[in-house]
Amino acid sequence: MRSFSLRLQALRAVLAGFGLDGFLVSRRSSVRYLTGFSGTNGICFISESDAVFVTDFRYKQQSEQQIRGFRTEIATKTLLEGLRDTGLVKPGQTVGFESENITVSVFQKMRALFPGVKWEPLEKVVEDLSIVKAEEEIERLREAARMAERIFEDILPMLRPGTEEREIAAEILARTKRYGAERASFEPIVAGGERSALPHGSATDRRLRPGDLLVLDFGCVVDGYASDITRTVGIGKLDGRKREMYRIVRTAQQKAAAAVRPEIPCQELDAVARDFIRQAGYGEFFGHSLGHGLGLSVHMDPRIGPGVPKRIPPHAAITLEPGIYLPGIGGVRIEDDFVVRENGAEALTHSSAEPLELS
Amino acid sequence: MRSFSLRLQALRAVLAGFGLDGFLVSRRSSVRYLTGFSGTNGICFISESDAVFVTDFRYKQQSEQQIRGFRTEIATKTLLEGLRDTGLVKPGQTVGFESENITVSVFQKMRALFPGVKWEPLEKVVEDLSIVKAEEEIERLREAARMAERIFEDILPMLRPGTEEREIAAEILARTKRYGAERASFEPIVAGGERSALPHGSATDRRLRPGDLLVLDFGCVVDGYASDITRTVGIGKLDGRKREMYRIVRTAQQKAAAAVRPEIPCQELDAVARDFIRQAGYGEFFGHSLGHGLGLSVHMDPRIGPGVPKRIPPHAAITLEPGIYLPGIGGVRIEDDFVVRENGAEALTHSSAEPLELS
Repeated sequence: MRSFSLRLQALRAVLAGFGLDGFLVSRRSSVRYLTGFSGTNGICFISESDAVFVTDFRYKQQSEQQIRGFRTEIATKTLLEGLRDTGLVKPGQTVGFESENITVSVFQKMRALFPGVKWEPLEKVVEDLSIVKAEEEIERLREAARMAERIFEDILPMLRPGTEEREIAAEILARTKRYGAERASFEPIVAGGERSALPHGSATDRRLRPGDLLVLDFGCVVDGYASDITRTVGIGKLDGRKREMYRIVRTAQQKAAAAVRPEIPCQELDAVARDFIRQAGYGEFFGHSLGHGLGLSVHMDPRIGPGVPKRIPPHAAITLEPGIYLPGIGGVRIEDDFVVRENGAEALTHSSAEPLELS
Repeated sequence: MRSFSLRLQALRAVLAGFGLDGFLVSRRSSVRYLTGFSGTNGICFISESDAVFVTDFRYKQQSEQQIRGFRTEIATKTLLEGLRDTGLVKPGQTVGFESENITVSVFQKMRALFPGVKWEPLEKVVEDLSIVKAEEEIERLREAARMAERIFEDILPMLRPGTEEREIAAEILARTKRYGAERASFEPIVAGGERSALPHGSATDRRLRPGDLLVLDFGCVVDGYASDITRTVGIGKLDGRKREMYRIVRTAQQKAAAAVRPEIPCQELDAVARDFIRQAGYGEFFGHSLGHGLGLSVHMDPRIGPGVPKRIPPHAAITLEPGIYLPGIGGVRIEDDFVVRENGAEALTHSSAEPLELS
């Protein structure tokens, strides 16, 4: 597993840069990124010369199978006590930690358990390292993306008048599991008719009706890597305004995809879609960011929104998901997954250029 | 909604007890407990005379429908900036917050956004208030429990040699959604054969075989309230040791249920089951706590484990889930949900006294 040793090396370079004696990794996606561990309870401590992984008895077998490059310790009480018992973290040391993950309660426990240690809060250190993807990671993202598209194809016959939203969500979840995903990236959003104007409408017992816009937003986690797609379809024929909304959103997304280049500032990419929607007269009805990073977390940096100067590096995986939401009428959102390549955006998923009108 | 005003009143009594000018509520389950809001992005601030709820534009409609007893503000940037803009949190005030939820990163932002405010970290204040359930909450827990049992009955015909674990997980998730749950309480655990010895075995493509123990652990969230049940069945006839393991675990659970009384210390209840399993010779193979509280979080206080002196109040909802896990052989865990009543445990779910052997 060469990639894991490269990741460890990259983190050690960061430690050296900050002048730290060690780094405590506690976020689940960070632990997985560094060790490959897919369980729910584990932390790591990394110093220049050591790398230890601490978990509990439930994951003894699993960690023996999964963990490479780390010494594993099984904690008998809490993970932090297990780490203390290794004796690796010593008074007088300066140790970094993931401040976006450690709660104030846990931080109070860290201070009590490790007297004399100077704790250095650092935000998103491991997440930052993980924005740029290796080809093996992109392959998993591609698999996760393909699975989501396959599920969308599968459920098309259900999308007609009379079907309950929650029946569609049930089918998405069942297929996610059946096709071998670890889990759904998040609880599927299935919102029809006027409910499609709720950007985060969970599935209800509402039945689809002719003329409805239907927004489906879901994704699959394959080997830890998440996909995230949104499709909007018409239940039967859509009226002129709804078709127009679809075309504007889809064109906004295409324009943004065409503007993707390595090191583009997030706000500049966001503005490509946002300005187009504004010029089409729907600016006030697009209230969220254009997209976000994708990887071992379904929502990760970079956030592609207004006022974000951060640049998007090559080999980042991102979503582009413009939307228009008209209260009382309905909403359109279209979301595809992309990898930033030297020559532009490589699409992992492919929404349709015209609204699908299903009857 | 009388219960919501009672909850607010209880929190205000806590504030007065700690001498606080206000309290910031940020945990999703706490926000829901106090306001009824079921979305993913909202915070509250409560003072003696004010109660404000802050969310973002996506939840404008939803909050108008759901929130009672709080003034709602729509934040245009972050929720904390939205709270600052209300002007309710003033320099010189002492304000409590949920230290089990606020990360060090967020805490740094709070300090920067609210200069002159003295922040008081308090652990699980709202969770503590929510341990004791009102009858309307118990009714929802009962519904969530019934739904899980119904799903278990539904899937029994699938539990036979040749079925893939993940096919069972798919069916559990689909029915959870179809029956109207908000979501599954957690990703279902489906672990057959030697994998049943992994207390947290996620579903794989392994097919069931004759003689397997199969552990199913899943739950449903109804109106925010979670159930959590575990069933262990035999795929065809079980050998003598596996039957013995089942009977020991089931008897340990029955003994614990019979020992439930208001104000019993967690460690005393845990010891009832643990001592019995130890005397039966399997003590080293039961490595986790006996159970946990249940409510708007699927795992909440009280944790019913060794070394926990905390007492379990009347009208708490709890799980009792002893287990025995023999590496390489298989595992048995049985988990039911209970409410602590004046005269003992009221069972919300009902596992079978003898192992179900399905062929």
